[in-house]
Amino acid sequence: MTYIFNFFTQFNAKNKALFFLSVLLLCCACENTPTVNKITVNTEEELNNAITKATPGDEIILANGAWKDIQIQFYGTGTKDAPIVLKAETPGDVFIEGASNLQIGGTYLEVRDLYFKNGYTPTRNVIQFGISKDSIANHCKVTHCVIEEFTQPNRDDTDHWVEFWGRHNELSNCYITGKSNFGPTIMVQLKGNQHIKNYHQIINNHFGPRPRKGGPHGETMQIGDSGTSMAPSHTYVANNLFERCNGEVEIISSKSNYNEFRNNVFFESEGSLVLRHGNYATIDGNVFIGNDNSEFIGGIRVINTGHWITNNYFYKLKGSMFRAPLAVMNGIPKSPQNRYLQVTDAVIAHNTYVDCVTPFHFSVGSNVSQSDVLPKSEIRSARPTRTTVANNLIFSHEGGTYPIKNYDKVDGVLFKNNILNVENKSDVKPKGILTKSFKVNKISDVLFVPTENDKDVYYGFDFETITTDLFGNKRTSENNSVGAIVNPVKDNAVLVDKTKYGTDWFSIEKEKYEPKTISVATNQELLEHIKSVNSGDILSLKSGSYAMDTSLVIDKKVTITSQDKNNKAELVFTSNHTAFEMNPKGNLIIEDIVLRGNNTQDAFATLDKNMTKAYNLWVKNSEISHFKNVLSVSKGSFADTVSVSNSIIKDCIRGIQLNKETNDKGDYNAAFVYITNSTFDNINETALDYYRGGYDESTIGGNLKLQNNTFTNCGKDSKDHILIKNRGIVNVDFSNNTFTNNPVKVIAVLWGEKGQKPVDNVIKNSGEIKVVQNLKLKLMY
Amino acid sequence: MTYIFNFFTQFNAKNKALFFLSVLLLCCACENTPTVNKITVNTEEELNNAITKATPGDEIILANGAWKDIQIQFYGTGTKDAPIVLKAETPGDVFIEGASNLQIGGTYLEVRDLYFKNGYTPTRNVIQFGISKDSIANHCKVTHCVIEEFTQPNRDDTDHWVEFWGRHNELSNCYITGKSNFGPTIMVQLKGNQHIKNYHQIINNHFGPRPRKGGPHGETMQIGDSGTSMAPSHTYVANNLFERCNGEVEIISSKSNYNEFRNNVFFESEGSLVLRHGNYATIDGNVFIGNDNSEFIGGIRVINTGHWITNNYFYKLKGSMFRAPLAVMNGIPKSPQNRYLQVTDAVIAHNTYVDCVTPFHFSVGSNVSQSDVLPKSEIRSARPTRTTVANNLIFSHEGGTYPIKNYDKVDGVLFKNNILNVENKSDVKPKGILTKSFKVNKISDVLFVPTENDKDVYYGFDFETITTDLFGNKRTSENNSVGAIVNPVKDNAVLVDKTKYGTDWFSIEKEKYEPKTISVATNQELLEHIKSVNSGDILSLKSGSYAMDTSLVIDKKVTITSQDKNNKAELVFTSNHTAFEMNPKGNLIIEDIVLRGNNTQDAFATLDKNMTKAYNLWVKNSEISHFKNVLSVSKGSFADTVSVSNSIIKDCIRGIQLNKETNDKGDYNAAFVYITNSTFDNINETALDYYRGGYDESTIGGNLKLQNNTFTNCGKDSKDHILIKNRGIVNVDFSNNTFTNNPVKVIAVLWGEKGQKPVDNVIKNSGEIKVVQNLKLKLMY
Repeated sequence: MTYIFNFFTQFNAKNKALFFLSVLLLCCACENTPTVNKITVNTEEELNNAITKATPGDEIILANGAWKDIQIQFYGTGTKDAPIVLKAETPGDVFIEGASNLQIGGTYLEVRDLYFKNGYTPTRNVIQFGISKDSIANHCKVTHCVIEEFTQPNRDDTDHWVEFWGRHNELSNCYITGKSNFGPTIMVQLKGNQHIKNYHQIINNHFGPRPRKGGPHGETMQIGDSGTSMAPSHTYVANNLFERCNGEVEIISSKSNYNEFRNNVFFESEGSLVLRHGNYATIDGNVFIGNDNSEFIGGIRVINTGHWITNNYFYKLKGSMFRAPLAVMNGIPKSPQNRYLQVTDAVIAHNTYVDCVTPFHFSVGSNVSQSDVLPKSEIRSARPTRTTVANNLIFSHEGGTYPIKNYDKVDGVLFKNNILNVENKSDVKPKGILTKSFKVNKISDVLFVPTENDKDVYYGFDFETITTDLFGNKRTSENNSVGAIVNPVKDNAVLVDKTKYGTDWFSIEKEKYEPKTISVATNQELLEHIKSVNSGDILSLKSGSYAMDTSLVIDKKVTITSQDKNNKAELVFTSNHTAFEMNPKGNLIIEDIVLRGNNTQDAFATLDKNMTKAYNLWVKNSEISHFKNVLSVSKGSFADTVSVSNSIIKDCIRGIQLNKETNDKGDYNAAFVYITNSTFDNINETALDYYRGGYDESTIGGNLKLQNNTFTNCGKDSKDHILIKNRGIVNVDFSNNTFTNNPVKVIAVLWGEKGQKPVDNVIKNSGEIKVVQNLKLKLMY
Repeated sequence: MTYIFNFFTQFNAKNKALFFLSVLLLCCACENTPTVNKITVNTEEELNNAITKATPGDEIILANGAWKDIQIQFYGTGTKDAPIVLKAETPGDVFIEGASNLQIGGTYLEVRDLYFKNGYTPTRNVIQFGISKDSIANHCKVTHCVIEEFTQPNRDDTDHWVEFWGRHNELSNCYITGKSNFGPTIMVQLKGNQHIKNYHQIINNHFGPRPRKGGPHGETMQIGDSGTSMAPSHTYVANNLFERCNGEVEIISSKSNYNEFRNNVFFESEGSLVLRHGNYATIDGNVFIGNDNSEFIGGIRVINTGHWITNNYFYKLKGSMFRAPLAVMNGIPKSPQNRYLQVTDAVIAHNTYVDCVTPFHFSVGSNVSQSDVLPKSEIRSARPTRTTVANNLIFSHEGGTYPIKNYDKVDGVLFKNNILNVENKSDVKPKGILTKSFKVNKISDVLFVPTENDKDVYYGFDFETITTDLFGNKRTSENNSVGAIVNPVKDNAVLVDKTKYGTDWFSIEKEKYEPKTISVATNQELLEHIKSVNSGDILSLKSGSYAMDTSLVIDKKVTITSQDKNNKAELVFTSNHTAFEMNPKGNLIIEDIVLRGNNTQDAFATLDKNMTKAYNLWVKNSEISHFKNVLSVSKGSFADTVSVSNSIIKDCIRGIQLNKETNDKGDYNAAFVYITNSTFDNINETALDYYRGGYDESTIGGNLKLQNNTFTNCGKDSKDHILIKNRGIVNVDFSNNTFTNNPVKVIAVLWGEKGQKPVDNVIKNSGEIKVVQNLKLKLMY
């Protein structure tokens, strides 16, 4: 201000009034926007120094480059109009790498444009709102940041990538993807009065793919936990895109009260928005998109009291039960706090279901039939009650005549003015689901809207609070409609515009790589190329025998094949090192190859630890013999797919061993195991051991397809006298196999309650295939 | 309005402006206060007619007199400024009697000045806010009404006297007393979205004595239930007097969220304000008053999360455990919904404890030691956590050096700036309880205030919301104090002014009756006088033998005594009818009398049913012989006290039989049983059978004093070979008795966990007294 006064003092008296007015205005302006200090920092010391000295309005700028192994504690006191900002010099050019994290403690602090990659947090969180019990974050914001595959090396190690404490904090316009370890990506904590009624905003983010975890605790977001499920949270989750968030059965696990989920898009995500604990959530205007192939993509699952589910749009969801478009669960009478409370006082109104196989599933989780294997405190027999289902619209282009699947009586639900364009062939046929003839227009991709409003709307208690539709258009007494959308709809209306979400600088579009085929003639060439090729490339081997005395490391997508399919190349492994060492992200395709060991090594094996990310293994038209194990894995490792087709496996000690997750916490070592059209001959012990333990319902639970195979002379040394072990695996197709002369008591034990049964297998001198209706599993909770 | 216009049209033009202005004003006035129609009704038909036709502002007036067997459905739509009123012609002269009740359905309805007595409801409620699912009450009020002993004939029958449904209803300035049957007096229901966030007002009422129920479900008020404990209730309970509300351990059972309890007085009530289910209650500015005698008068019991307990004043409370001045309970880990959730995030601040034996009890209900008799789902091992106890003041005129009783570790509680005027000799000695020397002034009855403010106040999270003290005086940063009260206090400050509560017309003061003594010489006189005397009178019998061939009915307080204590009158009962038939409210004192039966009848027996209210029986310096039972009772009957002192009981088949509550729901047949300085000789079966079954903690649980008695030749035909049965009775004093030649295996079984032990008994040839540490009782929940 001194400068300004000096500058103006030469003005004459005549202008004095103007001068004072100007000064006054300038003063006012200054009051509102204090001087912005921009401090560029190049080292951790400079950064800490700048943080210590920062005052409202300051911008601390991280110089471009990689900041490695840095634990940032960003604290201070900004103001609403002048937050203290920590940002990148150039968005996209500042990387947080290595053993790094960020903690934020104070008021009105803002972080933007940081890019976390190539590392993982040394603590429990990558970004934490809050530093300590005494340094809580309030009114702080993280925006336009990216966290990409910043995942713990060990799948079993727990962390959260963004953890909220305090109140009124915001995570906005971020892109977050690739967490494969234990723990929800985003976690809102409510332990303590300082953290309730938090009104956090989680908005405009792009939650990119989260891979299948192969066990529980793979949520993309969790708000509270059962221990704080009585707390009022008021967390606001809006306008986010959840894309292929496949971690587990819950994409979002709401475990506290009064949370709001508005206008989010769930795109081909294998899970649901689950109201797991807590009450009085609002789920309004969200879009759930499935596809033709997946039965794992879910919608909304309802537990507890007082939820309002309105104006949501569900497209092509094929899931059922826990993964139904709308799953309303049975509760446990007088449920323990961490289990399933009865659904009461829920309102499900004005939703639209297009081409969903069966939109409404009631009494999901009813398990009275399992009373002999489960304790009373696990029996879900309390049906939904005082629940209203009204004004929903169900449209099916073809078929889809089963709007309701009921797992118990549906006697506590009031159906009013729901419409369906086909006949209702469900067991439950309430008057409140009316078959009407109506047509839809395709407005844009996946968006179908009835040609006319259906104005026969039911007005239940408090329905006047449903004031808008999916697009935010007003519902009035003159212009209202059954379903999520009221006509007229804007011409350019779209349901999913992926460019709306995430940062303003990070592009998720990767340049498409055109794989190359490389000809290989010697073992030395094979060794060299396998290291140097780009992911996706194909190594095409000339016919002949390749003697290998070292492991081949697979850490990208590589195909190894023979140039002459009629004269397959043969890899002969001579050392006791594993033939193929599967590393994180390894994706190995063996096609038309003969692999031969010397009985001392494994054909395929994972690293002993730090299997950060999933791997894949495909064996086609090949032959594997004389190995200790065909596949041996470590605890914590996870294969998305292990596939053997049209191949011969013989003269090995053990076959495919996916059996290291034995602590019975619901984890397993592979998502999909396909064994088809193949021959297993002279495998001494188990041909396959695929294990999942613990009473868990939060994952797909593994998939085994065992079809058209022949097993001969296998299992003679199997300790349990079982040929194929698949304990706890949920989805099993066991058909058209032939078992001849296998000296075992039991070929396999199937799980009746999950619909497993042997189909068209031929058994000669090989024990039996058992079916156990209810498997007794260790309780985890 | 037509009339007004006609009247004014003769005015001249000069006055036209004035005229129009006047009309305008009149119109406005009319808009705000519509015509009040006062409709006096004399019959039910007239009443129903008036209700049907009522419009806003109408007053329906019930004519003076008794309205018998009337079920009133008062419905309609009033407005805020013009409610529809149903009222008495003269307050105190309109009685609702017989099988009657009142249901209110609509908006802005008001009921006042009704007096419910001499009857009971034929439905589940005396007054119900709400008629049906479709006729709910909102903004309705019941005020200045009395409900007096309008209790079900059978104690086991359930009802509520005032039941709330809907929202924004009010119960104010009522006097409600004398409920002795099953069920909370006041019940707030939350089943359904129409009833949550109700903001009901329960204010300025006088809750008069509720007698001990002798079993659970005797609350004076219950807000929600465990099944709706997740609902936001926001019920406001303020400025009420609870006087000797002794129904059970919970005076108020708060079972929902966000309820407020402000400035109520709990006067010598045997129970506590209990935060049983639900969270985030406010308990501010209440007064709890005990006395020198009772250990049953409690304070506040805390379960669940987020409660704020501030500015309360506790005086002379001697209770412990469930009945402690402040009982903070242990929870059950992952508790079932209807049991005990852990205490977390509670704030107990600025309370004052004067002459309370031990103000703070932590981990109340810890029962790990009972793991062998209770299932895991009943074990309370989760200690309070994230709980703050700050700025409380503890003053003791003498002794009182044990501020804390802990039933488990106290590791989750933050103590800050609590002060104590004596040394802390408790096991737990946190730094946050400081011994300070301070003095108090006696301002008025039971009100003691430190002579000076202690300004060393701790300011915890959100403590700035504690803006006032017990009297509503401002707390400021300049003038604040530890404890419930900030000086200066007004000179005329009183804690309890009973005239402030209840109606403006009903007087609870009864004229004191001076008992008369009536001389009796013949059996005829005895028969006549026992019918005709006033309650409290004394029948003084001349010496001699009175042959009685009929029952003497006792339905009031009667003393029967001998004029010559050295030559006692003898009543000889010759028929097989019970000698004394105890009716509801019977209070019989037998003093210096000899009672003799013919072995076919009982000396004392209750009615078989409809024992509406409790009775009392006192036997002093008397002799009872040759009866079937000394006392035989019916299920549902309840004696407040059965006392035998300095008497001889001999040659009977059975002694005192209080054993009809056998359905193991926690009920029992007598509150206090005193047997002292007496002789039992030749009682064939059990001398005493006093039974309470079921695992219940909501009552005192019975009291047995068995002291200085002699038992000889008793029990030979006892089926269980037990002389004295007291199963499930909680408080037992078993001392200084002599047992000689009683052919039983067991004299009695005492309950170790309740501190029972035999003291100084002499046993000769009479079996043993057993002590069982943990009694296995049937679970009720």
